[in-house]
Amino acid sequence: MQDRFVSLMLQEIQQQPAALERMLADDLGAVAELKKRLEKKPPRLVVLAARGTSDNAAQFGRYLLELHTGIPVSLAAPSVYTLYQASVKLEDALVVGVSQSGESIDVNLVMDAAKRQGAITVGITNESSSALAGIAEHTILVRSGKEQSVAATKTYTGQLMAMYFLAHALGAALDMERLRQIPESAADALNCSDEAAAAAIRYRFMERCVVVGRGLNYANAFEMALKLMETCYVVAERFSGADLLHGPIAMVEHGFPAFLFVPPGVTAVPMAETAGKLESRGAETFIIGNPADSQRGISVATGLEELFTPIPYIIPAQLFAAHLAREKGLNPDQPRGLSKVTETL
Amino acid sequence: MQDRFVSLMLQEIQQQPAALERMLADDLGAVAELKKRLEKKPPRLVVLAARGTSDNAAQFGRYLLELHTGIPVSLAAPSVYTLYQASVKLEDALVVGVSQSGESIDVNLVMDAAKRQGAITVGITNESSSALAGIAEHTILVRSGKEQSVAATKTYTGQLMAMYFLAHALGAALDMERLRQIPESAADALNCSDEAAAAAIRYRFMERCVVVGRGLNYANAFEMALKLMETCYVVAERFSGADLLHGPIAMVEHGFPAFLFVPPGVTAVPMAETAGKLESRGAETFIIGNPADSQRGISVATGLEELFTPIPYIIPAQLFAAHLAREKGLNPDQPRGLSKVTETL
Repeated sequence: MQDRFVSLMLQEIQQQPAALERMLADDLGAVAELKKRLEKKPPRLVVLAARGTSDNAAQFGRYLLELHTGIPVSLAAPSVYTLYQASVKLEDALVVGVSQSGESIDVNLVMDAAKRQGAITVGITNESSSALAGIAEHTILVRSGKEQSVAATKTYTGQLMAMYFLAHALGAALDMERLRQIPESAADALNCSDEAAAAAIRYRFMERCVVVGRGLNYANAFEMALKLMETCYVVAERFSGADLLHGPIAMVEHGFPAFLFVPPGVTAVPMAETAGKLESRGAETFIIGNPADSQRGISVATGLEELFTPIPYIIPAQLFAAHLAREKGLNPDQPRGLSKVTETL
Repeated sequence: MQDRFVSLMLQEIQQQPAALERMLADDLGAVAELKKRLEKKPPRLVVLAARGTSDNAAQFGRYLLELHTGIPVSLAAPSVYTLYQASVKLEDALVVGVSQSGESIDVNLVMDAAKRQGAITVGITNESSSALAGIAEHTILVRSGKEQSVAATKTYTGQLMAMYFLAHALGAALDMERLRQIPESAADALNCSDEAAAAAIRYRFMERCVVVGRGLNYANAFEMALKLMETCYVVAERFSGADLLHGPIAMVEHGFPAFLFVPPGVTAVPMAETAGKLESRGAETFIIGNPADSQRGISVATGLEELFTPIPYIIPAQLFAAHLAREKGLNPDQPRGLSKVTETL
């Protein structure tokens, strides 16, 4: 018999529409100030510094900002600043630290270095009184409320929302009306909870898998894999559809489970081709998006523009991981050996 | 009984010292010209574009260039240019395409876009008459001779050498005498072939593992994992020591195999700590570097400065993968479903 324990993770997944609403209501004002500053001194480069789930949100930011502002983006390698204490020329850069707690020592050291180099600094954090909020000149608050599960969910989608705000501040011509509809799309996506719970049963004994995404949903592949690793102890590899074909696909054998994010838009055709290549090797694919009748998967609200899919598309994956953890008899709120704030250099 | 088939992969691993010697003898002249050009117009950003093994070499370049030139580096997301056809502002950038064959369509499209944007372009390739060599204004030739095994080895170390040349061209104060000793270090590392062959036997039935590295050897963790995936069909996750602690370590259970690159220098202490954390969870660690008496691993020539370890340190990992493929009865030269040139967009 399944116990009826409802994890904090599942509860916090449900809180996402309200949290995203709070950001839209409260943060766009602060972003307007940042926007003015950036108009006066447009950066030539954006550097995003983060670890773990926050680094996955940064991966989304990377695509969003390059696609919609044309400014090149670099995902910082924190050890360049921490272990090697290198002096990187960041005077023309906007440097953005992303951290749920705002207490990541390594991210904060990158921010310190960036300030010394004359960069404009922005912190994206859920904690208004954190060290990160103190160091950064501008803060975009992820108004998720305290995140109690070690497995981050609502702060991830909040960080994705913050990336839209950042793109707006950098002059991206985003359709703000569509942006305001994201909480509704997120609420729609929550309707697939029963479907995700039913789907998870089959994967009770899954020990390894690959998760594949591209472009704006590439970050979601990383995030789903991380959730599967930390809450379900599944060895989950993550790849772009293209990188998978450059070698790793050789390890895919009959019955190998592969999860794919297939949103509408320019990645739809190459992702469908990747799914086809996996299936032709006997892999068992699972499509998050709009699976064909012959495919396993979870349907996510159709009619969304690709640009606005990453938040609603990660929700079925979060639900799947939370339900799979339960099927495996694991507590996703307290993975073995993890704590909420990870201190690394 | 073991058959005595010697794979092309093993043969090509042995060819590395000579190939690296050729680069040192023949390419530094071409680099001098590039150096002059870059002195006249120093880039504010370096963008590295690659896939697969070449992308792992780019990962090394990322650390090397930021540490020794202070110029920020971005690893390109090719789909930004190919699928989305975005216009990224690269007029102040040096854009470097890395491709063994020089025929990667996506990398070449990034190079085309970079030229249109006014960037300085460099190609790093093993094929002097390739499309990449034609597009790029400057070429650094990886003089490996034809690479016949699908599993890249000698072109990887050649690409790492090219990254040192690029750092030199960008004004890094590298000790050129030490650089000239790399082929000798590589030859020394080849002496561990029997040790690697003996070590591989134990892993005959390994199905999944993690490979961990940091800083200048982070790329090697990616490259060893890729070799294990494509030649041994092992689900090999790759992490930086810090990222591993942000979640994925939860999946590590008793007996979980973990391979770690532990060179001398600033990453030695944090990597030893990571090894300790893995061992305290019962993981079976394997150290490439200087394993303690109580640890499994392969010793690599001591006395090297960290900066010059990546080439000799990947060699035991290449040998281990080639020998493990043989133990598993697999042909590393022809992984299932792969061809030498992978065409992706």
